[in-house]
Amino acid sequence: MSNWYLQTGKDSDIVISSRVRLARNLAEFNFKNNYVKDESKAVLDKLEEITPALGYGLKFCKMENMDYITKVSLMEKHLISPEFAMKDGRNQAILINDDENICIMVNEEDHLRLQVFSAGLEIENLVGLITEIDDKLSELVDYAYSKDFGYLTACPTNVGTGLRISIMVHLPGLAITGNISKVLRAVNSFGMNIRGIYGEGSESKGDIYQIFNNQSLGLTESEIMKNVKAVTDKIIEQERLARKNLEKKPIELEDRVYRAYGLLVNSRKLSSDECRSLLSDVKLGTDLGIIKELDDAKVRKLELYTQVGNLQKLLGDELNAYDRDIKRCETIKNIIEN
Amino acid sequence: MSNWYLQTGKDSDIVISSRVRLARNLAEFNFKNNYVKDESKAVLDKLEEITPALGYGLKFCKMENMDYITKVSLMEKHLISPEFAMKDGRNQAILINDDENICIMVNEEDHLRLQVFSAGLEIENLVGLITEIDDKLSELVDYAYSKDFGYLTACPTNVGTGLRISIMVHLPGLAITGNISKVLRAVNSFGMNIRGIYGEGSESKGDIYQIFNNQSLGLTESEIMKNVKAVTDKIIEQERLARKNLEKKPIELEDRVYRAYGLLVNSRKLSSDECRSLLSDVKLGTDLGIIKELDDAKVRKLELYTQVGNLQKLLGDELNAYDRDIKRCETIKNIIEN
Repeated sequence: MSNWYLQTGKDSDIVISSRVRLARNLAEFNFKNNYVKDESKAVLDKLEEITPALGYGLKFCKMENMDYITKVSLMEKHLISPEFAMKDGRNQAILINDDENICIMVNEEDHLRLQVFSAGLEIENLVGLITEIDDKLSELVDYAYSKDFGYLTACPTNVGTGLRISIMVHLPGLAITGNISKVLRAVNSFGMNIRGIYGEGSESKGDIYQIFNNQSLGLTESEIMKNVKAVTDKIIEQERLARKNLEKKPIELEDRVYRAYGLLVNSRKLSSDECRSLLSDVKLGTDLGIIKELDDAKVRKLELYTQVGNLQKLLGDELNAYDRDIKRCETIKNIIEN
Repeated sequence: MSNWYLQTGKDSDIVISSRVRLARNLAEFNFKNNYVKDESKAVLDKLEEITPALGYGLKFCKMENMDYITKVSLMEKHLISPEFAMKDGRNQAILINDDENICIMVNEEDHLRLQVFSAGLEIENLVGLITEIDDKLSELVDYAYSKDFGYLTACPTNVGTGLRISIMVHLPGLAITGNISKVLRAVNSFGMNIRGIYGEGSESKGDIYQIFNNQSLGLTESEIMKNVKAVTDKIIEQERLARKNLEKKPIELEDRVYRAYGLLVNSRKLSSDECRSLLSDVKLGTDLGIIKELDDAKVRKLELYTQVGNLQKLLGDELNAYDRDIKRCETIKNIIEN
C-alpha cells in the first residue's frame, strides 16, 4: 500500500489532496516568539517524552539531525512548511508515522501544529482523525486555552479552533479557458482563501491551487468544514464546466495534452518548472480519459519524484541543477516503463 | 522499388537529391516569349508526336488535363517548377516516366526543359543519362544552336550548355551552430548559388538548401560538374564539422532531436511549417544514429507525404487547411507504424 500522496481518492480528477491542521500551544510555556531561556528545548523535550504514549506509530524526529534533501522532500509532500524546512532545525521536530498521513510539527509558529492528510476530498474523516489525536494529546499535555477565545495561538488569525482545512486542487480547465482569476476573486470574497501553491496569487505553475479557510475564530469546527466543503464543491463544479467546454474542441484538447505527453516522455533535459507545466496538461489528459498510456498512479509518481527534493531522495544522491534536469528525464522514463 | 525521392543515395545524411537539367529550344519556332499565332500549340503537338520514338517509358501528359493537387504534388517532388504548377497549363505538358526520374517540361520558360533526378549525390550518372536523352532528342527535333554561343535559350543566363546542376542539401548543423550565412556567402562568391528551397535567402524552413551553378555560358559541361561537385563537397565537409561540434554536447543534441520526435509523433494538429521544422531535427537525429525509432525510408516518406499536395494526393481527397493539419498527424502515425 502506497502513502496517501501516491494514492487517488474522492474527486481525484480535480482534488489532489486534503489536509487538516490544528494549531496548539502548551499552557506552561510562553509562545514561541516570546520564549525565555530554555523554553524552546523544554517544549521539544516534553513532546519527545510523550510521543510513545500518544501512539499512532508516531516517531519523534529532530529536524537538526535531518539532511537537507529529506527536509525538502517532506516540504514537497506538504508534510512540513517551507519555513520549517529551510531553518537550521534547532529545537524543532516532527512526530510522523510510516504512512506519513500524520505529521505534527514541534516549534513551528506554534508549539504544536497537528496535521493529517489524505488523497482526494476527505474533510470529515480527517477532522475525525485529528480530533481523536487532539483529544489524546490533551490528556498528555495542558493546552493554552481561553474560555472566551478558545485555543490560544502565536498569531491571532489562528486563535479559536486553531483549525485550518486546506484542499489542494488542479485547475487546468479554468486556467486554459481564462476564468481562473474570476474564480479566485469569488472565493476570496467568501472568507476563504485560494492561492497557487507554487508562485504567488493567480500565477501557479502546474495549475495547482490550495483552498483554505482564513478564519479560525468565531466559527465552530463544523461551520468551517461546511464552508470549505461548499467552496470546494463550487470550484469543482466550475472546473468540470471548464473541462466540458474544452471537450467541445476535442482535437485541440487532444493535441494539447499529447504534445505535453510527447515532450515529457522524449525530453532528455527538463527543468522543474517545465516538467510541472507538462505534467499539468498530462494529468488533465489522463483525468479526461484522453491519454491512455498513463494511469493515475503513474501520474502521482511522476508529480512527486520529478520534484527537486524527492528526485534526489529517490536517487539517493545530491545533484546540481544541470544533472537534476537530466536525471529527471531518466526517472520519468523509469516510472512510465515501470 | 520505390521512386528516387523515397530512396537514399550517396552522402544521403546531408545530400537529399541531385537534379540535372538542360534548357533546349526548337530551331523552327520563336522563343516562348515571342510566340506568334499557334506556335505554342505547334511545339506541344511536335513533342507529343515524337514522345513514342524518344522511348525511356516516357508518357506525354498535358498540364491542362491535370488536377491541381497532382500539379502541387509534382512541384513538391521538384519534378516541375512552381510557375509550371500554378499556371492554367494551356499548351504545356510533361514527358514523364513511371520512376519519375525523368521529367521533361514542354513550354515552360524554354520549349524544353529536360530534367533527370536521383537520390543522394549523383552528378556524373545524371549528366550521362541526360546527355543520352539529349542526343536522342536531337535526332528527333532541330535544336536552336549557335556555333558561337552554344544552345540558345529564352533567358540569356541559360545560353551555352543550358546545363544546371542542383544539389539539395539538409544543413541543420550549420543552422543550429549559426554558421549558415557565412557558408551561403562563401558559395555565392564562387559563381555558384545556394538558396533555401522553402523561403528566401538564408531563411529556410526545414534547413533544406539547393546548391546550383549560376553560369551556363563560357564553361564546358565538365567544368560545371567539377565546380558544383567541389562546392557541394565543401559544404558537406562544413556541415559534418558542425554536426561534430553539436555532438560535443550529446545531451543537448539528443534533447533537441527527441523533443522534435516527441512532438511529431504525439501532435494531433500540425501545420506544414511546424512539421517541416520538426522533421529537420528528426532527420538530423536519424542521420546521426541518435533516433533509433525511425529509419531513412520512413523519414523520406514523412518528408514527402506531410507536404500539402502529396498529403492530399495520398489520401485521395481535397482538404482545407484545418483538416490537413489533422490528417497530417494521422498520416505521420500511419507511416511510423507502417
